[in-house]
Amino acid sequence: MTTIATNELTPTELTALASSARAASRVLASASTATRNAVLSTLADQLAAHRESVVSANAADLAFARALVDKGELSEATYKRLDVAGGPAGEKYNALVQGVRDVVALDDPLNQITLARELDRGLDLYRVTVPIGVVLIIFEARPEVVVQISALAIKSGNAVVLKGGKEATHSLRALHTHVQTALAAHGLPPSCVHLVEGRAAIAHLLTLDHLLDLCIPRGSNALVKSIKESTRIPVLGHADGICAMYVDAAYPDVDMCARVAVDAKTQYPAACNALETLLVHASVVDTVWPVMARALLDAGVELRCDAATLAVASTLANQSTKTVIPATPADYDTEFLTHTLAVRTVSSLQDAMDHIHAHGSGHTDVILTADEHTANTFMRTIDSAGVYWNCSSRFADGFRYGFGAEIGVSTNKLHARGPVGLEGMVTYKYRMHGNGHTVAQYSADGGRTYTHKTRTGHGDIPADALRMIQQ
Amino acid sequence: MTTIATNELTPTELTALASSARAASRVLASASTATRNAVLSTLADQLAAHRESVVSANAADLAFARALVDKGELSEATYKRLDVAGGPAGEKYNALVQGVRDVVALDDPLNQITLARELDRGLDLYRVTVPIGVVLIIFEARPEVVVQISALAIKSGNAVVLKGGKEATHSLRALHTHVQTALAAHGLPPSCVHLVEGRAAIAHLLTLDHLLDLCIPRGSNALVKSIKESTRIPVLGHADGICAMYVDAAYPDVDMCARVAVDAKTQYPAACNALETLLVHASVVDTVWPVMARALLDAGVELRCDAATLAVASTLANQSTKTVIPATPADYDTEFLTHTLAVRTVSSLQDAMDHIHAHGSGHTDVILTADEHTANTFMRTIDSAGVYWNCSSRFADGFRYGFGAEIGVSTNKLHARGPVGLEGMVTYKYRMHGNGHTVAQYSADGGRTYTHKTRTGHGDIPADALRMIQQ
Repeated sequence: MTTIATNELTPTELTALASSARAASRVLASASTATRNAVLSTLADQLAAHRESVVSANAADLAFARALVDKGELSEATYKRLDVAGGPAGEKYNALVQGVRDVVALDDPLNQITLARELDRGLDLYRVTVPIGVVLIIFEARPEVVVQISALAIKSGNAVVLKGGKEATHSLRALHTHVQTALAAHGLPPSCVHLVEGRAAIAHLLTLDHLLDLCIPRGSNALVKSIKESTRIPVLGHADGICAMYVDAAYPDVDMCARVAVDAKTQYPAACNALETLLVHASVVDTVWPVMARALLDAGVELRCDAATLAVASTLANQSTKTVIPATPADYDTEFLTHTLAVRTVSSLQDAMDHIHAHGSGHTDVILTADEHTANTFMRTIDSAGVYWNCSSRFADGFRYGFGAEIGVSTNKLHARGPVGLEGMVTYKYRMHGNGHTVAQYSADGGRTYTHKTRTGHGDIPADALRMIQQ
Repeated sequence: MTTIATNELTPTELTALASSARAASRVLASASTATRNAVLSTLADQLAAHRESVVSANAADLAFARALVDKGELSEATYKRLDVAGGPAGEKYNALVQGVRDVVALDDPLNQITLARELDRGLDLYRVTVPIGVVLIIFEARPEVVVQISALAIKSGNAVVLKGGKEATHSLRALHTHVQTALAAHGLPPSCVHLVEGRAAIAHLLTLDHLLDLCIPRGSNALVKSIKESTRIPVLGHADGICAMYVDAAYPDVDMCARVAVDAKTQYPAACNALETLLVHASVVDTVWPVMARALLDAGVELRCDAATLAVASTLANQSTKTVIPATPADYDTEFLTHTLAVRTVSSLQDAMDHIHAHGSGHTDVILTADEHTANTFMRTIDSAGVYWNCSSRFADGFRYGFGAEIGVSTNKLHARGPVGLEGMVTYKYRMHGNGHTVAQYSADGGRTYTHKTRTGHGDIPADALRMIQQ
């Protein structure tokens, strides 16, 4: 067993596949809430009933991966992520099944009326949420993502083309089969959820901007950046997550500053919302900074400091802690994703904001201050998806925000920004219900004028229109 | 006078200009509602007070244009569009001034709370509307666009880089000066609104995706297409507007069908929301179609028909009407923008929908039917920004929708779709107000759980937070 055989499609076959996803998306878009939820319930049942066969397919991937670990070509962490069972009782697998049932319980993101307006008697405008269409999702390592993403896609009425990691080939196929079975069980085309294999597929799919409406790469910075640079399909995601925290002259409780910084840096350093840069107001380098530096060093953080913060922190490092070293300019542009923190003194709030705009990535930035006005200036001015006051950047997450699901985190400014839940998987269209209305009637000669009466509650919407839109 | 001298900047100067717009946008983003409205009021006052000097600058452009008209190198229509006064009493100019005052009266699109949620006691999440940042807007011919767009940009807190048509150079400069004066009068950087000249500037600006957040081309299809293909900056707009109308087997009142089709095709054929394709159900070719064809011919429309509709319409054409000719395949993919209509027989609703998905442009498509279920299937399935039932496609317009303003019409699926008002000029950020909260507190060891209490009305939002966000 020296390799996993993948089923690589030709460009022509990939185009046909994307085209079938486009056609399937039109059927799925019209499926009722009940039908879409029924597919998910069936999927959960299917997965629960076929755990053994999925785990057995997963075993083939794991055996291959184990050989790579033994040869030192794969990390133990990656091996663990490949495992779908999570122990003999299958806790991880059961959580996956429950996750699908949880999606059933979420509110339907489709057919929501976000604007209702009478333009004139009998001429009614409705802005209604609809699926985006066909979404290309590229992910790595964890095979259960195929189920999680399929569930969110079906819930939101979107067809998806999924490309997973090669090392999970057998597991992905097994899980994907159950998704297609569940779709077919409720009369929906299996082409709603495609699984493609082989890295070469990505390059061709990225050229199909007439068939694919959105691309969501879930993987390394390098993957996201290379995709953003090579396609005209809108890309939802984030490359770097260089989150900064600014400690203001009017600092709040010192221990709190230390606690929040340690949480932001160390609670899960590999996350995109982990802290990478700490900006310290010059006036607190001798007061707040020593306490924070002590706590960070005790938490195993290496500090890369400018001259002023270095002078203070150097006296605190000892043999039992991580080191304190001078920062290089590149450190302020680096997403360390490990126990390393770049620290810099700033002369003012403006200096801090300028630093963040020059070096940040627009993900999540934090101010620690007791001054409400300063906090507000920071939160209004900083042009990031998340602007936080006196709390950890690690809260930037769809589940913590209460979305019940997370597709990813976006540092785009348009469409979805920040943690993206089901709302990020929908767009809208305008429906107009008329009765022979013409624009000429509202011209100078036509004599009619628009009423433009906004209907603010569902009670104001004519019952027949509401039934048509939401049935 | 053989040419208009434009002030063409070097690439380095253009980058510096975009960079200054970026810096200015951060100041403008924090400006209060009152300040932004005050700038607009001052702008209106300035324009009203300086009509003579603007009209005199405009006269230089008009003189140059008149020479081109005389040589047959410019159309009379383009010449008319260049005129900012609109007669000796300046009706057009006065409407422009009033338009700016109307923008003052619109609701502030910024600092609107679209989600408010308590994550835990003292940890509050707010999703707040914010400006997009810096928007590049490219337009042609009508010089007053510089004022209209500046007003909407300032209202929505966005800096803009404007590129107008060369033939309006003197008028644009005169109007732009007043915009910058009004900004400065209220302490805002004049760099909030830049005017650049020379076509070469566009190519360089389109490379500055780190400084420009959005591009809105307002011009020919060719312009929009070439921009979409040459930049990584998101482009908001529409290229083709190939709007279709489908007459169903269960047709409504026949005269109404004729009236709506004539309005959609002829009320203003050069608009992107004008009708280009008529799809007739085979079962009504002998009943509804003759009435519609007669009305369209009487309204001066040339009909390009398939065999079945041709056979009927040919008998109606006479020397006093436009012609009826066989359609070529290309006619169904053409935006005529004039009194020409492609007509095709379809065998079913599905056939009609397939035609629209294959040949349409996702702008606005209409169904004429008396059957509610058929109407709903059409409106749910057709993947266009506007899906209309028994009314003219010409209603697809920001003013007719009651937006009070229109930036453009978008056939994009993400961010803004359909007619775009001020809402299309904003995005959002998440503000988190905490009090030392860490993510670790909510881990298995931390013991705390999220409350995720959604605040549904402003009354539920803590007064201090509301004041900070909306002040």
